[in-house]
Order: sequence, then structure tokens, then C-alpha cells
Amino acid sequence: MKKAALLGCGVVGGGVAIIMRDNAALLEKAVGEPVELKYILETKAPSGPFADRMINDFSIIENDPEVTVVAECIGGVGVAYDFVRRSLLAGKSVVTCNKQMIAERGLELLAIAKEKHVFLLFEASVGGGIPLLRPLTNCLSANRIEEIYGIVNGTTNYILTQMIECGEEFDAALSAAQRLGYAEADPTADVDGLDSMRKICILSDLCFGSNLPPEKVPTEGIRGVALEDATMAEKLGYSIKLLAYARRLDGERFTAFVAPQLVQKEQLLSSVGGVMNAVVVRGNAVGECLFYGAGAGRMPTASAMVADILDTFRRGNGRKFIDWGEEQPERFVDPMDVPSAWYVRYTGSAALQLAPAVSDGVEHAGITPRMTPRALEDYLSGVQVLNRFRVLE
Amino acid sequence: MKKAALLGCGVVGGGVAIIMRDNAALLEKAVGEPVELKYILETKAPSGPFADRMINDFSIIENDPEVTVVAECIGGVGVAYDFVRRSLLAGKSVVTCNKQMIAERGLELLAIAKEKHVFLLFEASVGGGIPLLRPLTNCLSANRIEEIYGIVNGTTNYILTQMIECGEEFDAALSAAQRLGYAEADPTADVDGLDSMRKICILSDLCFGSNLPPEKVPTEGIRGVALEDATMAEKLGYSIKLLAYARRLDGERFTAFVAPQLVQKEQLLSSVGGVMNAVVVRGNAVGECLFYGAGAGRMPTASAMVADILDTFRRGNGRKFIDWGEEQPERFVDPMDVPSAWYVRYTGSAALQLAPAVSDGVEHAGITPRMTPRALEDYLSGVQVLNRFRVLE
Repeated sequence: MKKAALLGCGVVGGGVAIIMRDNAALLEKAVGEPVELKYILETKAPSGPFADRMINDFSIIENDPEVTVVAECIGGVGVAYDFVRRSLLAGKSVVTCNKQMIAERGLELLAIAKEKHVFLLFEASVGGGIPLLRPLTNCLSANRIEEIYGIVNGTTNYILTQMIECGEEFDAALSAAQRLGYAEADPTADVDGLDSMRKICILSDLCFGSNLPPEKVPTEGIRGVALEDATMAEKLGYSIKLLAYARRLDGERFTAFVAPQLVQKEQLLSSVGGVMNAVVVRGNAVGECLFYGAGAGRMPTASAMVADILDTFRRGNGRKFIDWGEEQPERFVDPMDVPSAWYVRYTGSAALQLAPAVSDGVEHAGITPRMTPRALEDYLSGVQVLNRFRVLE
Repeated sequence: MKKAALLGCGVVGGGVAIIMRDNAALLEKAVGEPVELKYILETKAPSGPFADRMINDFSIIENDPEVTVVAECIGGVGVAYDFVRRSLLAGKSVVTCNKQMIAERGLELLAIAKEKHVFLLFEASVGGGIPLLRPLTNCLSANRIEEIYGIVNGTTNYILTQMIECGEEFDAALSAAQRLGYAEADPTADVDGLDSMRKICILSDLCFGSNLPPEKVPTEGIRGVALEDATMAEKLGYSIKLLAYARRLDGERFTAFVAPQLVQKEQLLSSVGGVMNAVVVRGNAVGECLFYGAGAGRMPTASAMVADILDTFRRGNGRKFIDWGEEQPERFVDPMDVPSAWYVRYTGSAALQLAPAVSDGVEHAGITPRMTPRALEDYLSGVQVLNRFRVLE
């Protein structure tokens, strides 16, 4: 009998408990023995179908040698971080969907896990239920990863999709997302790109092997995307997507940023609509792969966490393969120095040489040659610029 | 130092040797010690960059205790099967991209691997370089897999894409594929669906847990797809794709078949063009995931094989998780009893009630209500049918 404890029984935590109950036979078959959820840590009074195992004292879990894995669904870096750290120090593996904690404290927590010969797994922290981190670090382990980017936030993708497909303004699309439960009452972390930024930190850490602190990543959300941009992009043959983006440059250097980008209609990523997520990985042997699925939501995220729980049981004390090194600031290249083509929307009588280009008579839009953001300023100096975004290469 | 041997140094085998040479530092980091390709079994005289390790006597590999993993790139079920079997019996793990051997003899070979406490891994056998089998059996292990289907043959997808996008007839598209090296001189295994059929056997084995013998799977290739079907499907809002398809039905029963199907334009799979592959997996917790990438080709396929080699080194004698049981014939449901909507193209004066429907005046096409193939015969009895295909649900 393998025993786990759950910290937090909200949306995702509740899903973990449900999967462990409803798919119990499947889990037993996968592990080779029964798997039990022994405790659920909750501050609220015990209630619901799992009331019998709810406790409110973490030290019971910490001191119970039968519990070999702790699944953290609290969120944030306060009490969650404290409990995860103590669990690892107590020699228990930890499974989490907490992207903020991994992006900000992953380096330190992975070092503790390594020292204690336990696992810290976080498949659910990026892409929700989509198998992504394990394929990256395992199936693609024969590849040098050259580039990784994608749509990793369902809320903003829903809003942009509504703007593109239904011609809704940003504010109306955001309200719709809130009504449907796709966006929080305070949508800042999603809309301003923070959530995507934490996820690209984790992906960059894994792909490039040195810690990327969140504050290093230039982050632009979708508040600046106008309905006119969505429309003009469509006419040019592109879709606007909020991309979390990281790429290896010459030598061991790399860049990373979060910003809306124009994606060519021919690229599969441009067709990823609604709340769905998709991540493109380019390896030096495999070329481009894309992983698509539900990037959030109770059951998909819980599904990834339970798979991680099973993995800790199955691997026993085997070697751990997920970690990365200290920050190497000299490796990080400011996106201000990274060239790309640019989408530009402008107005006035002066004209830019853009290809392709479209115009509604008053406003003009098109794609520039490849240049850095710095060079772009000069290029645009003679016109009245309304907006600009990178074009994905 | 970990040591591997390679059987066959053709397209894929050569790729394995190249990756193991060029990404050596990466592989050493992943495994924790250097990784060497000690032997390459080749019937031709030694030549090329790896001539120093070429041998033509398999028993040298079989009897060398230093070699702990054998990578098979010979193909077919003749000598490849014999060498794989002997490798496993000699206590060596085996890595292969040989879908025919796994589809036909996987059950038996996995039993030997289990008995000998070694691994038989075959990530590269389905989807080439796309991480697919390991995510299925590991990341999605908390899910009951309800459905799995996809485009698993690049040659036929290239031909269909040419027909759809360039209006080429089947014969012209096939010739183009042959000129570009995407199709063999004898294209039977691809065009008639055999390759897809072997792959859906492997996927079904893994998802549903009992052996599905290849001869059980009704298989229809793309020779019957006319240019008119491609055109009519587009007008109806669908793309024609050759799909390898398997689905869990009521209880523990399941069905599997290979046939051209119409895929709605809204589904991401319909946008997978050219030689690319994509597989959709639906799990009871995660919902739908899609895995996309290069399904064939030297480096992508070799990339998956080298990842499997690394995996055998890293897992040591840990538990193996890929296997399935004996055939359970009562679980397999003949697709003749499985309902779906149908695309029908017909001519003549009688009219069917189809929705949506299109017509060029002489020929008519549209989508039927949901019914079994048997019921469809009655439904179509009054009209002159030109063609019919399932519509993906």
C-alpha cells in the first residue's frame, strides 16, 4: 500500500482526490499495489465525500512515515512553500501544480529534493493536463532544445479568440471570460502575462539548464491588443496569440519573453483557439513537435498531478532527472537585442514599405523586414504608429 | 561507461549513430556517465564515419556482457525478430522502431523482456520522433483512455494534402511523393493503410491492454479517395484524412480500424498537412490532448530511439511499465456494428436528406445522420452512390 497526502482541497486538489478514488483500480495496476490518499490538509471544517481524512495540522503529515508523497494544491509561495520545503526535508517526495513556487523557488527546492533523494515533480505547473515536461526531459533527451514557445494561458487565449472570431472588444471578451469562469475577478496575473511568464521560466530552466529568475523576463500582456489589430492580422494571414517564448541563440546564450505575437495561419499554433493551450518544442534532431490540450481546469490539471504521484511510487529511489543549475546572467540576452519581423499598424500620410500590407484607407498595417526593437524605432520614425507586435518566425 | 550496439546502419540506424556522436556531451549529462556505441551490425563492408565499429557477426554482440542495450533498425519480422529475441534472452534491453515486429510479435517479445528483467522500448515505432507512447503510458497513467486516433502515416497525408490544396489527382500526388522521397517505389504499405494499421494495433494494445492482432483490423487505404471527394469535403467544411482509429465502447469492449475519414475544419487535426503526423488521445480526466510532429525521417525517428536507449541506462533495473495481455477476442467490436455520421457523394435524380449538403448540379454530397455501416446500406438504397466515408465525431 502506497500512501499520499494532499495539501488543499479546492478546485485542483478536489480533482486529485476524485481521480484517486474513481480510477483506483487503474492506479493500483500502474503501481503494482493499492494507492491511498491518507490525509487531506484543509483549513475549513471537514465536509464533503473526503471529510473522513481531512486534517488541519500539517505536522501530522510531516511526521507520518507512511506518507511518502505530498501533493501540494495550495498555491502561492507562502504557506505552500513552507510545507513543500518541510515535506522534502522530511524525506517525502512532492508533486505540485504551483508554477509561481517552481518559477521562483524551484532551484532551491530541487536542491533539497536531490539532497534528500526524493522527487519534486511539477508536470501540472505548465500546460495543465498536457504531457509536456516529462516528454521534454525524457523523450526528447537526445535533443539539444533550440526553441520552445506556446500558448500557455487559456484565459488570454479565450479573450483573443473572441476578439478574432466574434469581433468583440477586449473589455467585452474579458467580461465574457469572467462570466464563464475562465477568468478570475482580478484577471491581472493572466491578462498582464504573469502566469505565462512563470511558465516560460520553468520551460527555459528545463531546456537551457540554468535558472531564469522571473524578474528577468520582459512581459507584455494582452491589454494593448486592439480589435483593429486582431482584424488587420487576419487580413494579413496571421492570428494574434499571447506567446511565452524562449530560444537558444548563438553559443550557450538564450532569450525569453512574453508578448503578443503574430502567428502565420499555416502554423498549427494559429488554430489553437478558446481556452486550449499548445506548446511547440524544436529540437536539433526531432525538429518541431507540438503538444496540445487543456491547459487548466480541475480534472486535466489533477490528472497530471496524479500521474506524478504514480511516478514517485514507481520510480522508487531511482535517479531523478529534472533539475537545473544556478542562474548564469551572462547567458541571458535582452529581447531588445533579438531581431524579428514586426507587425506595424499606423496612420497618417507617410507610408512604410511593408510586405504583406493592408489598409482600410485610414489605417495601414503590414510586416516589416527582420530587425531588432532598437532598429525598429528608427524604421518607424516618420509615421504615426498605432501598434506593433513581433511576428513569430 | 554505458555501451550500446546498433543493428543496421541504414536511414534510421545511421541517424542513431550520428546523434550518439554529435550529442555525446548531452547524453553523458543525461545518463551520468559516457555512452558509447560499441558495435554496428552491418552486412555490407565497413565504410563511412563509423567503419571502425562495424561487424557482421551478431553473436559478438550477443556474447558481449558490456553491451546492455541493442538498438534494432533492420525492419521486418525475419532476421530482426530473431536478433531481438536473442538479445532479450541474452539479458540485454532492446530499443526498436520496427512497428511490424511490435504489432505482430510485441506480446511475445515483451513477455521475454519481463522474464529477463530488461526493457523492450519502441517509442519510435509510432509517430516517429513525436513523444507519444511514453506520455501515453506514463503522463496519462491516471486516465482511462477512451479514444485514440490520428494521422500516423506521412506519405498518405502528403498525398491527401496535395489533392486538397493543389487539386492534384491521386496518381499525380503519389508520383510527386515518390520524387520527393516521401513514398517508396512500392507504396503499398503506406497507400493501402498497412503501416497505419500496424500503428493502431500498437496504440490499441497499450491503451486497452489486450493484444490486437493486425489481421483483425479492417483497413482501407486512400486509393479510393477521388479528387472530387477532397473538393466536396472542403465545401462541406471538412478535410479528408487517413485515420488510424480506436475507441473504447461500452464496458471493456473496443473497436479499431483504418480508413479515410472526414475531419471538421474546427478540429486541429484537420490542419495537419504534408508529411506531418498527429495523434489525438482522449482520457477520462485530461480530456483531449494532441501530439504533433515529424512522424518519419532519419533524425526524428533516431531521436526517439536514442531517448529510449538513454531510458534503459537511466532506469537501471527499475520496474517496466509497458506491456499488455493476451488477445481477448470477445472485447473487439467489428466496425460494421459501430455507428457514425457518413459523408456520401452520389449522382442521379433521387435525393438524400443530408445536412450539410452541397451539389455541383451533377454530383451531390453531404453528411448523413449517425448510423452503422449496415444501416447505411438501406439508407443509400435509392441512389447511385459514388463514394462514402465516415465522419469523425
